[in-house]
Amino acid sequence: MKDRIEKWMRENRQQMINFLQQVVQAPSTQGNEAGAQKLIADKLREMGLEVDVWEPTGDELVKHPYFCSPRTEFTGSPNVVGVWKGIGNGKSLILNGHIDVVPVGDVKQWEDNPFSGKIENGKMYGRGVTDMKGGSIAMLFAIEALQALDIRLKGDVIFQSVVEEESGGCGTLSAVLRGYKADAALIPEPTEMKIFPKQQGSMWFRIRVKGRSAHGGTRYEGVSAIEKAMLVVDAVRRLEQERNNKITDPLYEQIPIPIPINIGMIQGGEWPSSVPDAVELQGRMGVAPEEDMQEAKKMMEEALSLINDDWLKEHPPQLEWFGAQWVPGTVDRDHALMNHLICAYREVFEKEPIIEASPWGTDGGLLAKVGDTPSVVFGPGVTSMAHYPNEYIELDRVLECAQIIALTMTQWCEIALS
Amino acid sequence: MKDRIEKWMRENRQQMINFLQQVVQAPSTQGNEAGAQKLIADKLREMGLEVDVWEPTGDELVKHPYFCSPRTEFTGSPNVVGVWKGIGNGKSLILNGHIDVVPVGDVKQWEDNPFSGKIENGKMYGRGVTDMKGGSIAMLFAIEALQALDIRLKGDVIFQSVVEEESGGCGTLSAVLRGYKADAALIPEPTEMKIFPKQQGSMWFRIRVKGRSAHGGTRYEGVSAIEKAMLVVDAVRRLEQERNNKITDPLYEQIPIPIPINIGMIQGGEWPSSVPDAVELQGRMGVAPEEDMQEAKKMMEEALSLINDDWLKEHPPQLEWFGAQWVPGTVDRDHALMNHLICAYREVFEKEPIIEASPWGTDGGLLAKVGDTPSVVFGPGVTSMAHYPNEYIELDRVLECAQIIALTMTQWCEIALS
Repeated sequence: MKDRIEKWMRENRQQMINFLQQVVQAPSTQGNEAGAQKLIADKLREMGLEVDVWEPTGDELVKHPYFCSPRTEFTGSPNVVGVWKGIGNGKSLILNGHIDVVPVGDVKQWEDNPFSGKIENGKMYGRGVTDMKGGSIAMLFAIEALQALDIRLKGDVIFQSVVEEESGGCGTLSAVLRGYKADAALIPEPTEMKIFPKQQGSMWFRIRVKGRSAHGGTRYEGVSAIEKAMLVVDAVRRLEQERNNKITDPLYEQIPIPIPINIGMIQGGEWPSSVPDAVELQGRMGVAPEEDMQEAKKMMEEALSLINDDWLKEHPPQLEWFGAQWVPGTVDRDHALMNHLICAYREVFEKEPIIEASPWGTDGGLLAKVGDTPSVVFGPGVTSMAHYPNEYIELDRVLECAQIIALTMTQWCEIALS
Repeated sequence: MKDRIEKWMRENRQQMINFLQQVVQAPSTQGNEAGAQKLIADKLREMGLEVDVWEPTGDELVKHPYFCSPRTEFTGSPNVVGVWKGIGNGKSLILNGHIDVVPVGDVKQWEDNPFSGKIENGKMYGRGVTDMKGGSIAMLFAIEALQALDIRLKGDVIFQSVVEEESGGCGTLSAVLRGYKADAALIPEPTEMKIFPKQQGSMWFRIRVKGRSAHGGTRYEGVSAIEKAMLVVDAVRRLEQERNNKITDPLYEQIPIPIPINIGMIQGGEWPSSVPDAVELQGRMGVAPEEDMQEAKKMMEEALSLINDDWLKEHPPQLEWFGAQWVPGTVDRDHALMNHLICAYREVFEKEPIIEASPWGTDGGLLAKVGDTPSVVFGPGVTSMAHYPNEYIELDRVLECAQIIALTMTQWCEIALS
């Protein structure tokens, strides 16, 4: 089986590369996903799948407790799902990828047009090629290979190309609410071929710290919000340490800070010679795979309330959760999908895979928590290139990943004997 | 003498108030000083002084080591000087006030139009009324009183209405370079009738702290510029403490931090879930009255270079002096002008004046350092209202200050017997 899949993929490699290039050249940043989604939907139709295209909408979605997006209106930002029906009596599998890509950032840092899809030395370049169009096209190619080899599966395969992963996952949430659930899911985010049975969740926070203004020459008459913000940063660091000291999961053995709390932004004060009366911090709190997000929020609240400072006791820092969040997720190390994936990996690479916990969130948390669909993350992209200028993917990895996914499907969904 | 001056001022009080109101209603923020300066120049001409009006310009000014301004072009921003010639053989006196006012800030925090000049319960309101149009008009009124009483002085009185005090003093610098020097100067900045023989200098600084970017989920791969900036803030606080421990001047006995270093602004990072790779701090360093500004700068450089942190040793914080600076100044406690001022104060108030060192800079430092003109600061404005919304002055103080200045002139410049 492995050899037949490999042979077909080798022979049809260029066709896959061409399609990946086309999809990369469609710049599907937030609000601009329609072009790339049309390419995907057309392809799915060509492959004979049952195709469902819809724009997320409705109260059930935007009032859902796990809804998280800077927008509530998704016209022009469709989800695409294609179902490859099995003949029955098999386990179903969701193959989930997101079509949205993060902004290109400072264009001057790119050596080429960020949406060039240029190929050089076995690498394809472009925003989103690693995160995660390469992974999505690997999944499509896996289905194509099985179809071309006349293989039928018992279980359904549900291919999903969703919007909004980069801003909190409401594309996947909408798919779950539309009824798409399965016995398990595979998400080829850029893990660099590592297998992640556990995914860290994360939430964004904002902390406002108050001071009292005064002239800089009589600064003792004021209270510096910058100095008070330093106490807050200290408290957040202590909380991070406490939380991470409790992590004993062997999957995190190699990770210096399994669930970091990152303070990403600080801003305060209005004039060099005035005492600053307000500072705002913004950051991201990591949530452990098995942890409840509400519990994590409470820990942060408590840490802030315990800061030993008279001024801050009287003027407590204002904590707010805003912007994006990613629900954590976990499947058992011995889950059958894990076993199939590990076996397929061994077959293709003839070595043991690296199994870790992801340092970032994916839509797998939502699939598990809301959709009851345990999710494993495994994909071909280069982890360090996600969100970075000159993002690229190694095309050999896309092929290898497609092989492994195809083999995994034959095991999980089972081949129907004809 | 005191009674004659007091009587004339009481009888002509309304005239002074009307003129102060007119000047306050001319909104002389930076670049918009011409209207208010015309009122002053016309008044000086009416009083029969030799009037000199000019726009600061020229290489001698903008390349001067003490030049400090965000602009180098002063068209439309004239200085005004009026000389009341003495009959000779007396000591000359500069009466220096600045016409520029700071911006109104958030208009919503004002109860009235910021340039209303409204009078209520003995107070006049408006941006600049305390800092320092009230003081300037008090000086004019003092000259008018002596003129009206037919008093002639031996020494020259040089009345100055300068631009740019609020942004580094290049109006006064230009006056010095034009040749205006004297045996001493009086500057009625808003001291609330305290006498300041010493003035703190100050300089603005900017410190750029580098980090290394990384995804917040793997923040251990980056270096947080916010955490590194905290080390810089700590170092600045230690430096402030060391510098202030050395201040033994009894004038500073009542001041908790005689020469503060205020960090007024902080900004860094671009995304909540990215490790911030840059933070910028901006602040104001106080300079002791007798201190050399270059020495103070060196101390800051050294404090930053001594921070015990490997990353900061390899990536030293970038220190830059920018924006405004005010040269410190000092005259002897027993300087004759001090004595005359103290005596005049006692005559008017029948009590001892408070003698302190100013917590902020004035143009007196420049007059002393560049113009060889020892300067004392004493004025009627409400210290805490300078630069604040709903700025006001108490009109009785303006009158009392004018009396004290008039009496001081008669002593310092000496009355010519006719």
